[in-house]
Amino acid sequence: MINIGVLGSTGSVGRQTLEIARKYKDKIKVKLLGASKLSDNLINQIKEFNPDYVYVELGESQIIGSTKIIAGEENLDFLKDVDLDLFIIAIAGVKGIKPTYILLESGKKIATANKEAIICLGELEKENYKNLIPIDSEHSAIFQIIDRRPLDDVRRIVLTASGGPFLNLPIEDFEKVTIQQALNHPRWSMGKKISVDSATLLNKGFEVIEAHYLFGLPYEKIDVVVHPESIIHGMVEYIDGSVISNLSYPDMKIPISYAIFYPERKQLNNNFLDFTKIKNLTFLPPDNEKFPLLNFAIECGKIGGMYPTVLTVADEVAVNLFLQGKIKFLDIYGIIKEVVENFKVYNVKNVQQLLDFIKEVEDFTVSVAKRYGNT
Amino acid sequence: MINIGVLGSTGSVGRQTLEIARKYKDKIKVKLLGASKLSDNLINQIKEFNPDYVYVELGESQIIGSTKIIAGEENLDFLKDVDLDLFIIAIAGVKGIKPTYILLESGKKIATANKEAIICLGELEKENYKNLIPIDSEHSAIFQIIDRRPLDDVRRIVLTASGGPFLNLPIEDFEKVTIQQALNHPRWSMGKKISVDSATLLNKGFEVIEAHYLFGLPYEKIDVVVHPESIIHGMVEYIDGSVISNLSYPDMKIPISYAIFYPERKQLNNNFLDFTKIKNLTFLPPDNEKFPLLNFAIECGKIGGMYPTVLTVADEVAVNLFLQGKIKFLDIYGIIKEVVENFKVYNVKNVQQLLDFIKEVEDFTVSVAKRYGNT
Repeated sequence: MINIGVLGSTGSVGRQTLEIARKYKDKIKVKLLGASKLSDNLINQIKEFNPDYVYVELGESQIIGSTKIIAGEENLDFLKDVDLDLFIIAIAGVKGIKPTYILLESGKKIATANKEAIICLGELEKENYKNLIPIDSEHSAIFQIIDRRPLDDVRRIVLTASGGPFLNLPIEDFEKVTIQQALNHPRWSMGKKISVDSATLLNKGFEVIEAHYLFGLPYEKIDVVVHPESIIHGMVEYIDGSVISNLSYPDMKIPISYAIFYPERKQLNNNFLDFTKIKNLTFLPPDNEKFPLLNFAIECGKIGGMYPTVLTVADEVAVNLFLQGKIKFLDIYGIIKEVVENFKVYNVKNVQQLLDFIKEVEDFTVSVAKRYGNT
Repeated sequence: MINIGVLGSTGSVGRQTLEIARKYKDKIKVKLLGASKLSDNLINQIKEFNPDYVYVELGESQIIGSTKIIAGEENLDFLKDVDLDLFIIAIAGVKGIKPTYILLESGKKIATANKEAIICLGELEKENYKNLIPIDSEHSAIFQIIDRRPLDDVRRIVLTASGGPFLNLPIEDFEKVTIQQALNHPRWSMGKKISVDSATLLNKGFEVIEAHYLFGLPYEKIDVVVHPESIIHGMVEYIDGSVISNLSYPDMKIPISYAIFYPERKQLNNNFLDFTKIKNLTFLPPDNEKFPLLNFAIECGKIGGMYPTVLTVADEVAVNLFLQGKIKFLDIYGIIKEVVENFKVYNVKNVQQLLDFIKEVEDFTVSVAKRYGNT
């Protein structure tokens, strides 16, 4: 029996994790759930899985049946005392930082889909990333290939990008992009924040930084290629010219299940690749004119230090403003660029300083964004 | 220092093996060479590498400088007493059977490109295949992915076929195919026998049987897909829907070098995949009407026993007759089919019986071929 905890259980990755737990209830016991509040969704999950612990960001600590509800970020330290085989961090955005930090520092085994936490904790925690299993499909692809072997003979890794909903949109139409268009990802059904990040291609920039921290590779060894079919998720190129790649139909259950059962694999949806139906796998270079945030992110990564954090936080604020209809799609880049270029960056030594730093970047981004127009 | 022996050193795979030994002379010492006769090519190789032993099929045993020349198949047993880190079997055709058998039986570490031996020795030696490293690019691809791990979670493997020179030739033009056309492989530069086998797609059928014996997979778990670019060489599909594949520009030095340095990889030609130049990877099902020998081979494999040997030997004889201009391209299939359907198959218990069996199939094939016309 694998005892797991799922933080962010009502989101897209969280719900898919619970689907796997449901399918393999003889092998997986869900002992902990976490979400922002005690919503109907979460209550239903509690009824179904009867976990020992539930964490909610908002609300009150209480006991329901045999389940202990722990409320409030200030009480997150309880995670240190929960012993599970695996914590799955399916939280979206910078909210994932604190639980990720606590779990990493207390030596828990974690699998995470939260790239913001991996990036922002990069400088503080990268030494602890060795024991972490990535759930992001691209990083799971690389992880499945490398499988914790040494990287001496790796020449580079290649992350594939679908190109997002605007791959073929003419540059002059970016001005008029609507929220609905930005959320309409052609290949993956995901949360709103990551869907918008995929539309700007910044998501791929984040993934490059994430790969840098997760696998300890220099940026020169991490490439991006646009691959609209999203069948190949990641590739590892070796010094002999051989490339090993990971392919599947887009399905987050594969990396989630891989993280849970690693190093075993389990039968899932029986959604097997049919190459004679696929017919074509195509590749093209990223269009840096239409999607400047990809290279901008890689530059932030190369500068290093707290720059990737500034980028991540500025983006989260800007994307939220876009999703609220307060700024235009193209303003996302304008705001992020202005924040990264003007925020007075300093180093942090611990998670509290990091969270304070993030608050400052958030405030600064909001102030910058005020000068940007309504849609 | 890795001490190697190269049997078939003047052929295509042999020469490429020696190129690697030349490049890595600080790491590889060539202690043994082997070829059909003491040709100028072989003499030059002896001068360059100064091996302790040279085997020639034809000619006389003698000593040249510090090199012992051993001649004649009846003296092949000397291999038992040669201690090397790796024997590379780069011999083409059924001639590779006896040395492969001797090396396997004496527990030597071997890497082999000789699919005829793997197939014909399958029933006698498959238990000893666990320690063998395949050099055939498709099987090296699978080996690189599986890397000797258990196959419990493997759903199937997929071998890719370039489709050969006649992929797009209309079926009515097969009647007129010339030797030169059949040798003109679009992706790989190889020996004549294997080039013709690629033109009939029987080569891929052999590779399915080879994979069956090498990896211990049932035929139901071995698929073939036509992939004209020959970039993806092999794929392993797991029960979760994930596929791991091996890609490179067609270059036999990659699998050869992988076999020599396994599990390490070494820098070779710096011929790295550029996906934005490749642009497209395409897939289609094999055309069984134009290339009936693929499925015919798989059927022989499924019947098992000595049928794959009959197929292999009949093909070798027929292809040689085609290369001598004595039969037409389409006669290759006709002859093989007639031999497989009519030869009185019986089981063998050791290599001598196997070699006798092969001789009988050869004679039978020659007699069948007599009824086929000149080109």
